Amino acid sequence: MIVESHVARFDCISLDNGAELGPIEIAYETYGRLNEAKTNAILVLHAFSGDAHAAGIGQESGKPGWWDNMIGPGKGFDTNRYFVICSNVLGGCRGTTGPASINPETGCPYAMSFPVITIGDMVRAQRMLIDSLGISRLLAVTGGSMGGMQALEWAVAYPDRVVSAIPIASTTRHSAQQIAFNEVGRQAIMADPDWNQGNYYGKNPPGRGLSVARMVGHITYMSDDSMREKFGRRLRGKENFGFDFDVDFEVESYLRYRGSQFVNRFDANSYLYITKAMDYFDLTNGHGSLAMALEPAQARFLVISFSSDWLYPSYQSQEIVRALRSRNCDVAYVELQSNYGHDSFLVDVAEQADLVRGFLSSTFEKVQ
Amino acid sequence: MIVESHVARFDCISLDNGAELGPIEIAYETYGRLNEAKTNAILVLHAFSGDAHAAGIGQESGKPGWWDNMIGPGKGFDTNRYFVICSNVLGGCRGTTGPASINPETGCPYAMSFPVITIGDMVRAQRMLIDSLGISRLLAVTGGSMGGMQALEWAVAYPDRVVSAIPIASTTRHSAQQIAFNEVGRQAIMADPDWNQGNYYGKNPPGRGLSVARMVGHITYMSDDSMREKFGRRLRGKENFGFDFDVDFEVESYLRYRGSQFVNRFDANSYLYITKAMDYFDLTNGHGSLAMALEPAQARFLVISFSSDWLYPSYQSQEIVRALRSRNCDVAYVELQSNYGHDSFLVDVAEQADLVRGFLSSTFEKVQ
Repeated sequence: MIVESHVARFDCISLDNGAELGPIEIAYETYGRLNEAKTNAILVLHAFSGDAHAAGIGQESGKPGWWDNMIGPGKGFDTNRYFVICSNVLGGCRGTTGPASINPETGCPYAMSFPVITIGDMVRAQRMLIDSLGISRLLAVTGGSMGGMQALEWAVAYPDRVVSAIPIASTTRHSAQQIAFNEVGRQAIMADPDWNQGNYYGKNPPGRGLSVARMVGHITYMSDDSMREKFGRRLRGKENFGFDFDVDFEVESYLRYRGSQFVNRFDANSYLYITKAMDYFDLTNGHGSLAMALEPAQARFLVISFSSDWLYPSYQSQEIVRALRSRNCDVAYVELQSNYGHDSFLVDVAEQADLVRGFLSSTFEKVQ
Repeated sequence: MIVESHVARFDCISLDNGAELGPIEIAYETYGRLNEAKTNAILVLHAFSGDAHAAGIGQESGKPGWWDNMIGPGKGFDTNRYFVICSNVLGGCRGTTGPASINPETGCPYAMSFPVITIGDMVRAQRMLIDSLGISRLLAVTGGSMGGMQALEWAVAYPDRVVSAIPIASTTRHSAQQIAFNEVGRQAIMADPDWNQGNYYGKNPPGRGLSVARMVGHITYMSDDSMREKFGRRLRGKENFGFDFDVDFEVESYLRYRGSQFVNRFDANSYLYITKAMDYFDLTNGHGSLAMALEPAQARFLVISFSSDWLYPSYQSQEIVRALRSRNCDVAYVELQSNYGHDSFLVDVAEQADLVRGFLSSTFEKVQ
């Protein structure tokens, strides 16, 4: 299934910080067909480093989408039944307007003059896209990690537009530890002289800092167990320790490789803006409690977490479930047993697909 | 109690990688008095970023030692009864010969021409120090984290010199995850252009990289819970989010502060050498099993771990205990309940002190 990317253009978007940003472009892809009643649309929200290419084989890249094992004919998000949409987030670097985009007022990239954006801003941009597609209600909003934050924001900000929400391996607000890991990544980027206060476009990007930031990320996405199974203490093409500072252990070469690969596909300033949006996100903010913050939500919920995910631990998903149940909301919760840590929602999908399939099916029956 | 630092000098040390290094200096401090029979000496081994100043008030620094809450009159390591020794490790930067030391052959700092050292080398240097003090047997060897690795190495490499060993929050070998966190720190340092292949002495040290490395370290030393209690999502001197890339959250300013402070007291090349020594350490290496590797040990053991320590999880201490018990060794094990993560052995010491006091007392009775 070859898929092509689309771009939607809008004159302007109002941001949470009070600024107006425009014009903006939103890169998106769709899979399956929208039915006549327009009741079968599912919006998939990507995680921190994801993009609009969620499924199928990309026309340009030739690569499968980041959730191709979940989206497609007969899969968890069954494109024989549903119309699936995925867009790159505002502030991103994969087709949607972000800090690397040209500021029409100056003719130069925004860089750090790009306004600080929030999860709310990302969702507002998605709503404009959904409006432009003529879809009044989404059968489901779903995503893992930062995608789950957006799903929760959708359910609260536009309750009449959301029939169901499936936040996976996510939270209503980052803990101090989650903020701390993000901050280390930002500091690694800003410590790279090539970052140059964000003005590196057309020059060397801060690849060393971005690579270090990504390495930290990868450790947090895996579990102690999954790293042991994948690497253990195996040496890299050596019989013995090198007694030097070259790569000794396989885990070292893996991290260096993943770090350097990331530099080719991700903009360092987007790293700063998107991690900051995640850290700012706090559904409880301005409300007395999480339950009160969730008060407007009308959707039915399926909340999923993973046993070995220590970056977004199950207790964070359970907080969502408790708050929703305290309002007698329709919410199902499953903690899936998986060894893959936070990455589980991307790689260990058999049970997750079954859960999603059943939940969507019963939800779809209600709106028919 | 004002304490002064001493320096022991030796012509040469043979290293595990086959090289000879010399002359070397070892910085050390002592607390309490060595008895006439020389049976009351305890060697305290420091963790990664520690130094010889373990207790009392430093004559020059005016600051308490890193384990001052454990070492002193009436404390866990009771200096009214015992003679406590602590030295800076080989490869360090706090008085003992390391990469920042002058290579006598060139008149310049060793920098990256310093030989790669191992935990075994650190312990061999300590044995030379102990020999020079005329002590034939140590009542106890003890330390947390990397200090625990050295205690284990002592018990296996010089079994007739060690009456008891107390490895705390430690392991016989780093997991892939522990290697990965160390590797990120090394990469952060080496990514800093000021590192300059290690040749920065007399110029700007790679402070930005070292600071990022230390920030990662600090996150791993704390627990999710202790970070929540200490920082939560509290904002730094602000009513609301800044919507900018300044410090927003207290946890950010804490990490930046700790990172920048570290640069003033630690040498980046020592960071590389010491973390590599930790990663190379594998007591099982060259043996069929951990139990076989521990075969030579004659000491009695007290093994301590902490419930919230996710960097050196309890299962690693339990591996040591199982291996020792399988040889019917005298080993006591306690997992202490503490919220402070890996830092627990440094900060949450009341129960730890009681355990150590009792264990030492019974050990001392046996050698009297």
